[in-house]
Amino acid sequence: MSEYGVTSRQQDFSQWYLDVVQKAELADYSPVRGCMVIRPNGYAIWEKIQRALDRMIRETGHRNAYFPLFIPESFLKKEAEHVEGFAPECAVVTHGGGARLEEPLMVRPTSETIMYYMYAKWIKSYRDLPLLLNQWANVVRWEMRTRLFLRTTEFLWQEGHTAHATAEEAEEETRKMLGVYRTFAEEHMAMPVYMGKKTDAERFKGAVRTYCIEAMMQDGRALQAGTSHNLGQNFARAFEVKYQDQNQEWRYCWQTSWGVSTRLIGALIMAHSDDNGLVIPPRLAPVQAVIVPIWKTDEERQRVLAYLAEITAALSGRFEIHVDDRENFKPGWKYAEWELKGVPVRIEVGPRDLEKRGAMLVRRDNRAKQAVPIDGLAAAIDDVLAASQRDLFQRALAFRTANEKFIEDYEAFRRIIAEQPCFVWAHWCGSPDCEARVAEETKATIRVVPFSPEDGIETPGAPAPEAGACLVCRQPSASRVLWAKSY
Amino acid sequence: MSEYGVTSRQQDFSQWYLDVVQKAELADYSPVRGCMVIRPNGYAIWEKIQRALDRMIRETGHRNAYFPLFIPESFLKKEAEHVEGFAPECAVVTHGGGARLEEPLMVRPTSETIMYYMYAKWIKSYRDLPLLLNQWANVVRWEMRTRLFLRTTEFLWQEGHTAHATAEEAEEETRKMLGVYRTFAEEHMAMPVYMGKKTDAERFKGAVRTYCIEAMMQDGRALQAGTSHNLGQNFARAFEVKYQDQNQEWRYCWQTSWGVSTRLIGALIMAHSDDNGLVIPPRLAPVQAVIVPIWKTDEERQRVLAYLAEITAALSGRFEIHVDDRENFKPGWKYAEWELKGVPVRIEVGPRDLEKRGAMLVRRDNRAKQAVPIDGLAAAIDDVLAASQRDLFQRALAFRTANEKFIEDYEAFRRIIAEQPCFVWAHWCGSPDCEARVAEETKATIRVVPFSPEDGIETPGAPAPEAGACLVCRQPSASRVLWAKSY
Repeated sequence: MSEYGVTSRQQDFSQWYLDVVQKAELADYSPVRGCMVIRPNGYAIWEKIQRALDRMIRETGHRNAYFPLFIPESFLKKEAEHVEGFAPECAVVTHGGGARLEEPLMVRPTSETIMYYMYAKWIKSYRDLPLLLNQWANVVRWEMRTRLFLRTTEFLWQEGHTAHATAEEAEEETRKMLGVYRTFAEEHMAMPVYMGKKTDAERFKGAVRTYCIEAMMQDGRALQAGTSHNLGQNFARAFEVKYQDQNQEWRYCWQTSWGVSTRLIGALIMAHSDDNGLVIPPRLAPVQAVIVPIWKTDEERQRVLAYLAEITAALSGRFEIHVDDRENFKPGWKYAEWELKGVPVRIEVGPRDLEKRGAMLVRRDNRAKQAVPIDGLAAAIDDVLAASQRDLFQRALAFRTANEKFIEDYEAFRRIIAEQPCFVWAHWCGSPDCEARVAEETKATIRVVPFSPEDGIETPGAPAPEAGACLVCRQPSASRVLWAKSY
Repeated sequence: MSEYGVTSRQQDFSQWYLDVVQKAELADYSPVRGCMVIRPNGYAIWEKIQRALDRMIRETGHRNAYFPLFIPESFLKKEAEHVEGFAPECAVVTHGGGARLEEPLMVRPTSETIMYYMYAKWIKSYRDLPLLLNQWANVVRWEMRTRLFLRTTEFLWQEGHTAHATAEEAEEETRKMLGVYRTFAEEHMAMPVYMGKKTDAERFKGAVRTYCIEAMMQDGRALQAGTSHNLGQNFARAFEVKYQDQNQEWRYCWQTSWGVSTRLIGALIMAHSDDNGLVIPPRLAPVQAVIVPIWKTDEERQRVLAYLAEITAALSGRFEIHVDDRENFKPGWKYAEWELKGVPVRIEVGPRDLEKRGAMLVRRDNRAKQAVPIDGLAAAIDDVLAASQRDLFQRALAFRTANEKFIEDYEAFRRIIAEQPCFVWAHWCGSPDCEARVAEETKATIRVVPFSPEDGIETPGAPAPEAGACLVCRQPSASRVLWAKSY
């Protein structure tokens, strides 16, 4: 246990996670079943995620809008598979304004149906296409087993919803947004991910195809960090989303939807944090540096604080800085607290630093220390932030590489997965039966089916296609798929 | 009617408003009773409002967080007046995950109860105070008569919730945030407001005192544009929000809450827009300038477009610019469309402008035109935006001044209010009976009771205290209050 009572990962990974979330004050349990409270430290990370991702969503031509929280029950029923997938998870409003409603309202579990009803109203001509909208919103899915950030009854997310004139454009959009999620995961979250297709069992209910990105957590489990769905014309037919083409003929639109949620915060924690608490990639850190002054005597205190003022003046505007000048806490206590809270850089300033007109820089992720002259402080912080961002990614990548295996034989697969969760690349014939058997017997599921060369899209890091025999039934398989236990 | 079919204000103010909202594509009706869809043009204004106000909320020391959408029914009942005020307006979730819930959940109409349950958990010592949180969220209040933006069953808002050690601090906070709202309304929305107290009849249910800002719309009606509540210890006692003071004694906290919502977009429209469509104060305009190229021949088209590229290069990064180079629309049609959509500055660029290396600048709010050389374009746009922001405020202020009256006699009051809604400063004895009678007979209500000199807070623009006799009962009154019909 750390000084702050964080369980070690080794001892109990699951408890370690909850300790970090609660002791770093990222989130807390609420009195409402399955719902969490996102505390300011956690919400600030969400705001950083929103800002970065929102820019990427805009730069790819999408605009933000807002659709109703409630969905009439009959809407959900219009797409047969969709209602089957989501109705059992819905929270249902039966009364409003003191009276029983004629038709129950579902609290949105996802917004395809309510949005596409409007799309049908707005889209008239090919000139109205593509329609590229995104929404930042809360959604509710009644979860039986919840865990802070990772699986909660209510969560926050963005959901993009587009309509196109052709199947090709919809497919291009589905892949483009998958690529945006991958770039965001790797460049901002410092989290390597595998891209690929979901099997039918894991496909979004109502979609033709679901693509996703999958990351490895430090316990070897997989976490789905974003999904992008090609909806084909399923919803367009259900909601009459049609356009007149250049020849005045009415055609159904082709649609996509894609989303990421506050579970990314859980992913961030489990990908990078350590036994001392939170580690956040600098690009998503709400505060980049904390300054901790050191003094023994009152005279030292005054000199150090005056010097601090110089330092903060030099840094403010360039970095988000916090000065921890609390009187009743010793520096060592403060160091531990800011490590717990995941501030990427700590700047220690004491009388000796003052004499040398310097400061001590300490990196959160690897605790590397360096003495820096005040003139070079801003540049040194920039360097440390960049190095930390880069190293976190490389470390996560090395960890993934060290914890993935190529396995041919089902007995070995079962043993290895039971011993220690990891990523396994193994052959699969494509049969839902084999998939279901593995899931039942090992709890491991197929996380992604890598794109094939015909798909014309690379799956960086995934093994090249190669003939083999299905892990379970030994029928022929054209390529390996990724299996893992997952969150 | 304008070219785009916007009803004139003169003809039917209410229809004019709905025409502007729908034809400028700010919002649309949804199939869910009382809920609206905020379309991209409207949501972009909300994002501008959020960005500016969020900065002000942070600069006054608050942090953002997120609390659950659902509130257990029993929580609402803990504060007697609060439940009476809000329970009849609630949407109620009775089923979740396919089963009937043991306790119904209310969709939050406001979050005092759910937040303060958590505050009670988090606050232990005077060192934890003040606790200053804000939340951007959706809320639901079952409204019988709805109107896009102004009154909808679901709306978006921010709600600040604070806890303090003393009554004085809570009062100071309540006033500080009222001041923030006034600054925001006047400096960003260009909308003059009166500040003051609400009467008991209009007070937030559960608060000790409610302060508000009230603006005049172009039809002479009042619109409440923000409220700040001093909650005293009402909720602290109901939820046991307590702290240990320096002497280890447990004391109840003093609390405040304050909020503004998407109805501000409705206020913005009704304060400034005209018969040609939307007028937005430049500081809240998502796009500051639209460039419309003009050409007749193909040769002209090429030269103009090349020149346009020069202009956009000079402006991009400094302003949010849209270039309307659609081929199938004539310039006049485009002018009307961008007037309808409220872009503050239009830049017309044709062959003659090209020869003079200039452009024509047209202000949206007053249609003033000026020819500007390309070198001075950015500066000229800056000037026009600043002038437009200033003039919109001055025009709204002049309009308010022209439409407020001092009235002593109830018969005159009834006649004047019936003829044409306006602001009336009239004496009131303080009795709820007189207030209720006026409301019943004239539909006018008391919008604000100005602060008195003892309150130690100015109400800019409001008449100085002055003895008189109540409009209705002729009992003595120490100062006038503001009456109006309201949204």
